[in-house]
Amino acid sequence: MPEPPYYAVVFTAVRTEGDHGYAARNERMMELATARPGFLGIDSARGADGLGITVSYWRDEESIAAWREDAEHTLARADGREQWYASYALHVARVERAHAFTRPAGA
Amino acid sequence: MPEPPYYAVVFTAVRTEGDHGYAARNERMMELATARPGFLGIDSARGADGLGITVSYWRDEESIAAWREDAEHTLARADGREQWYASYALHVARVERAHAFTRPAGA
Repeated sequence: MPEPPYYAVVFTAVRTEGDHGYAARNERMMELATARPGFLGIDSARGADGLGITVSYWRDEESIAAWREDAEHTLARADGREQWYASYALHVARVERAHAFTRPAGA
Repeated sequence: MPEPPYYAVVFTAVRTEGDHGYAARNERMMELATARPGFLGIDSARGADGLGITVSYWRDEESIAAWREDAEHTLARADGREQWYASYALHVARVERAHAFTRPAGA
């Protein structure tokens, strides 16, 4: 990751029951997003209670806006509202500072 | 949640094997954090692969700094580095826009 500032998009969602084509489309969206200019990284976790959090990191707001306008991504968002998600929240945030820790080997 | 701007703290972590007192301390930290002035909300998910993401939301940077200086929280962070986490990353970000979706009832 570069030095801040950069951007984080936090997507927090509860899925509906069943797949409804979600897994394949999600894989395709990951493939498209990770190839976009300005894409920096993505982390995703879904707990046993059904709550999922995906955080993607982007160089700037322009990169986020361009990905938002991608035609396949726009269709996938519509399918998300119609089929895949019971609820979601999206936060776009400017990362102001960051740090990372990795456990020393053997510790 | 209020209208932006407010702040998000994104904590992404891989746990070590075993509990080492984590569950009880995590519960205590949740109790303390949610009672802090400026605390707005928290979402947490841990996937089957061991990656966990916790996003807490705060009114301003001062609220985050004050929680960071809390004595029990400071000790818990040290225990986290010594025992609970194989690796983690922390991002502090200013939320610039947000929206939420809830599936219409019966849809």
